[in-house]
Amino acid sequence: MVTVKPMWRELLSLEQLRERTVDGGEVTLRGMVHALRSLGGVSFLVLRRFDSAVQCVLREGLCEVSEGDAVEVRGVVRADERAPHGFEVVLDGVAVISSPKEPMPVPIHKSYMNLAIDTDLSLRPITLRNLRKRAALKLQEGIVRGFRDSLRSRGFTEIHSPKLESNTAEGGANVFKLDYFKQRASLAQSPQFYKQMMVGVYERVYEVGPVFRAEKHNTARHLNEYTSLDFEMGFIDSFLDVCAMETYMLKYVMELLAKEYAEELAMLGVQLPVIDEIPALRFDEAKALAAEEYGLKRSDPFDMTPEEEAAIGRYAKEKLGSEFVFVTHYPTKKRPVYAMDDPKDPRYTLSFDLLFRGMEVTTGGQRIHDYDAQLAKIRARGMDEDAFECFLLIHKHGMPPHGGLGMGLERMLKQLIGAQNIRSACLFPRDTNRLSP
Amino acid sequence: MVTVKPMWRELLSLEQLRERTVDGGEVTLRGMVHALRSLGGVSFLVLRRFDSAVQCVLREGLCEVSEGDAVEVRGVVRADERAPHGFEVVLDGVAVISSPKEPMPVPIHKSYMNLAIDTDLSLRPITLRNLRKRAALKLQEGIVRGFRDSLRSRGFTEIHSPKLESNTAEGGANVFKLDYFKQRASLAQSPQFYKQMMVGVYERVYEVGPVFRAEKHNTARHLNEYTSLDFEMGFIDSFLDVCAMETYMLKYVMELLAKEYAEELAMLGVQLPVIDEIPALRFDEAKALAAEEYGLKRSDPFDMTPEEEAAIGRYAKEKLGSEFVFVTHYPTKKRPVYAMDDPKDPRYTLSFDLLFRGMEVTTGGQRIHDYDAQLAKIRARGMDEDAFECFLLIHKHGMPPHGGLGMGLERMLKQLIGAQNIRSACLFPRDTNRLSP
Repeated sequence: MVTVKPMWRELLSLEQLRERTVDGGEVTLRGMVHALRSLGGVSFLVLRRFDSAVQCVLREGLCEVSEGDAVEVRGVVRADERAPHGFEVVLDGVAVISSPKEPMPVPIHKSYMNLAIDTDLSLRPITLRNLRKRAALKLQEGIVRGFRDSLRSRGFTEIHSPKLESNTAEGGANVFKLDYFKQRASLAQSPQFYKQMMVGVYERVYEVGPVFRAEKHNTARHLNEYTSLDFEMGFIDSFLDVCAMETYMLKYVMELLAKEYAEELAMLGVQLPVIDEIPALRFDEAKALAAEEYGLKRSDPFDMTPEEEAAIGRYAKEKLGSEFVFVTHYPTKKRPVYAMDDPKDPRYTLSFDLLFRGMEVTTGGQRIHDYDAQLAKIRARGMDEDAFECFLLIHKHGMPPHGGLGMGLERMLKQLIGAQNIRSACLFPRDTNRLSP
Repeated sequence: MVTVKPMWRELLSLEQLRERTVDGGEVTLRGMVHALRSLGGVSFLVLRRFDSAVQCVLREGLCEVSEGDAVEVRGVVRADERAPHGFEVVLDGVAVISSPKEPMPVPIHKSYMNLAIDTDLSLRPITLRNLRKRAALKLQEGIVRGFRDSLRSRGFTEIHSPKLESNTAEGGANVFKLDYFKQRASLAQSPQFYKQMMVGVYERVYEVGPVFRAEKHNTARHLNEYTSLDFEMGFIDSFLDVCAMETYMLKYVMELLAKEYAEELAMLGVQLPVIDEIPALRFDEAKALAAEEYGLKRSDPFDMTPEEEAAIGRYAKEKLGSEFVFVTHYPTKKRPVYAMDDPKDPRYTLSFDLLFRGMEVTTGGQRIHDYDAQLAKIRARGMDEDAFECFLLIHKHGMPPHGGLGMGLERMLKQLIGAQNIRSACLFPRDTNRLSP
């Protein structure tokens, strides 16, 4: 019998390696041979590690290595201003742990690979090894951490709701359906009903998880599966409480990114938005302002085009000094059945979108908490009230006023890094043509 | 135009309320009327809040309130040893914010509701308001936090992999299938291939997300959708490195629970397991020991029954002093195609399960990283090698030795709280009959 102790092979972080330059200590590192280069008679091995790529100096005749090898290297850390992180490792020994069958199909060691998007995506397990690509996707982690940590610090509880549902109540046409042990099931388009249910339990909840949209759009801003960051909170006085919580959360996210993801941001040349406070414009007001300011044609008064979103974003930036802008009071007929109508004008709802650099990244609002009001709205829309039976349990047995929002992780990242296509902001995107890898 | 500041209504936590007993300060609290009780001529209102239930003293004639109301109360905090948390709030004012349409269908204010499981699950949005039930599910958050935080501190990166796949490579019969824009798609049974791919990118990765199993078992230990906690790490020397990382992670989880979830653990009477080191037994050895010690019949030498798991767990507890036990070297024919065979005896794999209190909560092991070895195993099993094309990209272009594991969140919680049925450890369980709520 063996016993297993709580141990691990210690990984020296980039920061710890930098500190070693002081005493010139010897280190042993494992990683992948990212690139091999010769410069002025010196051979360099770029070692791709968990948190960074480290420049190593390879003495002649030390060892036969190839790009793509997994290696263990031993050497001395030495400060060098010309090296990417201000130091390099002069190698004494290299041992190959494993070798690839074939060379890289694309030059992942270049800063810019200039691949067609379809080539990139088809080779995604390999192209993500490119340092810029993995840095961009690493920022997903930072956004999600900031989202969770900020909310937990304000009394929110994390939940995990099911993605298989019987209910197509929210549904409509954009739902994926499947057979489930002789029943018909749907894939969740959002955790909406579950997070509302859980407000009755924990008062404030959040969830990070996949959502599924069977939309036939194949655009640079749509995915058929994406990661949704959702929260919902009870005892609000107005939907502006939800906006205020989001403002706090976003400020927290940007501060966390600045602090702990500085390497990635620098590599990508990303400028973080400054969030102090975020302006809010009414939907009708925002449309009018954008049309007036930038000469857009008046469009459907109950809808907003991507061009209008971009113009409102531009207006917010140029005139209001903010890269974020809330657009509030969306038309009732464009909002779901659980949205609360504005008592002052029921053609509009107490809801909002948040635009970031001219694109919607969040949809939220106040929800109906009164049983009779919710039932009346379901009936007024001619919807099947039986499909809402479980959902209506919470209204029937008592709910506080509440509201919340959903934020698309990939949209947020796309706007943050200035990507042209949302697929660049997702590890393995799903669109109407693509189901693999 | 309005501007939105990063603000929130401050919530006084249970700890902050306790501190108020010192200066007898007045507080304003919002919450749900969980219970109304009269005891010795005094009326009590139990206020259910985001983190606890607070006992309030209700003077006669103050306000008409009913169970299920959302209220705002004002009063003075006063130490009282007889009160649940050592204090109560003597109310000066109560305002009703919203009221339920109907009274509670079940007595959620009782400690034990004694409901049939089907009644509980059908009324889940309401029954979860019961304090014991919500405390049990709150522990999910603690387990997941400990999982993430421990791994991030050891250089792991969080990932989000797609749940819609074209590929049924891992598949077999237990896969949910659906139509996806004229293609056939599957729901992910695990993030296995994606986390292996991402080892080539970030070296160490983890993911928390839903997985889907179309198993027809309808037992107290199976769910058709559950939350899987997965990690995968590169540059291991042996699968025991994965076991060691899990031991570290579990120790971290238990310490976090002890520190930050003490209220919930106390309410449920949960004894946390002590993790110092975890014994590991070989599969064949473990089966023989359990059979010998507890007189079990010898069963299929390549499989392990739930009774054998329970007996091995009992053996570990009684003879080895551990509530956890690793069972290693599972038979090759019971393990998936990516599992690495033991070079000393290829009938067995370099893999393991972790049993906790006599039930499997984790499956893990070392994976094949060599292209030829992986291709040979796919072919030897007569599997369709085209279905593995994307997966094999990583082996073809270089992978370090690596391994990892998946842990079922609901199983872990079930064993931790000693629940009879795994459905009690899931907010909204999915089984062969149940798709709602």
